[in-house]
Amino acid sequence: MTVAIGIDLGGTELRAAVVSADGEVLAHARTMTAALDGPEAVIAQMADLVGQIAPGHDVRGVGIGSPGPLDAEAGVVVHASTLLGWNDVPIVALAEARLGLPVRLDNDANVAALAEWRFGAARGLRHLVYVTVSTGIGGGVIVDGRLMHGRGTQASEIGHMRITEAPVPCTCGGFGCWEALASGTALGQRATELGSLGRVTARDVALLAEAGNEVAQHLLAEEARWLGIGFANLLHLYAPEMIVVGGGVSECLPAMRPAIEAVIQRQAMPAYRDVRIMTAALGRRAGVIGAALLVLP
Amino acid sequence: MTVAIGIDLGGTELRAAVVSADGEVLAHARTMTAALDGPEAVIAQMADLVGQIAPGHDVRGVGIGSPGPLDAEAGVVVHASTLLGWNDVPIVALAEARLGLPVRLDNDANVAALAEWRFGAARGLRHLVYVTVSTGIGGGVIVDGRLMHGRGTQASEIGHMRITEAPVPCTCGGFGCWEALASGTALGQRATELGSLGRVTARDVALLAEAGNEVAQHLLAEEARWLGIGFANLLHLYAPEMIVVGGGVSECLPAMRPAIEAVIQRQAMPAYRDVRIMTAALGRRAGVIGAALLVLP
Repeated sequence: MTVAIGIDLGGTELRAAVVSADGEVLAHARTMTAALDGPEAVIAQMADLVGQIAPGHDVRGVGIGSPGPLDAEAGVVVHASTLLGWNDVPIVALAEARLGLPVRLDNDANVAALAEWRFGAARGLRHLVYVTVSTGIGGGVIVDGRLMHGRGTQASEIGHMRITEAPVPCTCGGFGCWEALASGTALGQRATELGSLGRVTARDVALLAEAGNEVAQHLLAEEARWLGIGFANLLHLYAPEMIVVGGGVSECLPAMRPAIEAVIQRQAMPAYRDVRIMTAALGRRAGVIGAALLVLP
Repeated sequence: MTVAIGIDLGGTELRAAVVSADGEVLAHARTMTAALDGPEAVIAQMADLVGQIAPGHDVRGVGIGSPGPLDAEAGVVVHASTLLGWNDVPIVALAEARLGLPVRLDNDANVAALAEWRFGAARGLRHLVYVTVSTGIGGGVIVDGRLMHGRGTQASEIGHMRITEAPVPCTCGGFGCWEALASGTALGQRATELGSLGRVTARDVALLAEAGNEVAQHLLAEEARWLGIGFANLLHLYAPEMIVVGGGVSECLPAMRPAIEAVIQRQAMPAYRDVRIMTAALGRRAGVIGAALLVLP
């Protein structure tokens, strides 16, 4: 059976898996990313993980999902803020030389979108937007049956569409970006500013809201409003059949669903209002599965 | 020489042209659209125009650019607000039966994007966003070398991305849409509210501003700010190599350019800041040329 290896290059953890053409994880291994030691050290770690899981499999190639910005076509990681010294790293060429296998690269949100499309919440569709809401907001868009890249793999930076005139500063240097208002970080900051909940995660807020805590309910309502405005924009911009939501904040999706849908009913044109908003199905596994899909047929 | 016929179905005027594979208009004809007489009457007009221009040409097929919403794949105009009784009209089937030629359909912004891509301002590129700023704001997106459609040809409704929390009502029923703030209609309304200019077009405002009129200069500065915010969003969402601007308000683009670029430098991430914003090159001809491209190789 032909398989591929998917590598999920995270700032904290490096994961690799042997993935079959029908999306099954046949073997996996992981280690803490040598994030401070430069690209060569991390590529050596990749070779080590591949050496652990590849034997006995007919490996077609290796896909790498990496933080961006990166240029998938050129096979270059332009910059990875969580990895020291990763600037203009020709990771595809370096990994091919080291592994002796064909290697392909794409960004982490794009590979997660591929995984959810082929084997997750959006199986069988032709158009979907994958949104990850955690520290920031990232996205991957499949439209007309193809993953969208744009110039230099810079498309679908959906977290940086401006949705308010309010000059809320964003980590990107801009103002009023969706990410600055609706990310897990923004939700956590609002919770901390309100004080009474202490330091809480998105999931804590959801549980507290469910238990009747009014502060938590207010926070979730505000989060739902910002998410709904962004989702309505995505509907008009990309016309997906489904929006798939991953990342930590997706755990609050059931609690926020009525408020999100109220915003969409008000803001979206009628033809877009029936599009489903679903929680991602593959969780953290989407990283390795989607990366493997870069080299699977 | 193999050619195609492009039809530009407007609410006021119906235009048809014989277009060569290298974008030359070899023959053309036009008439006032029988907008009040229903689809069959307009299709009879199309047959009449085609009969005038087709003889002597080896016509490969007919492309129609129509107001939307429409479903290009199904060949159906779902609704055309400027044409009475146009609801769920299977125009491709009706026109094929009448003309005896293969017919394809797409919306007016999409065919204009195709024309500007192949023969206009964005020749030779792989990624571009075409934006028409007139009564409303419409768009067509070419990304990774393909025109984007999405579910039911509903993608790239860029005029209806919300960019402000301010509850400015939009014709779509939503609030704070880009179109409600930056269209020619919005610019005209702001001019009329200010009073001192009388009833003016976008071009008048540009000329007055150039002549030193401070009210006009203020109006253009505000228009440029809203356009710049929307353009910055488009850069992050689609990663084009160029934004091509058509429609009446594009006549003000030279006067607004410095202000638009200042917004983009402030709001867009560095990797996007060098993208050119260009005026459309083909003007009104983009409609028939782009429609013909639907059936040209």
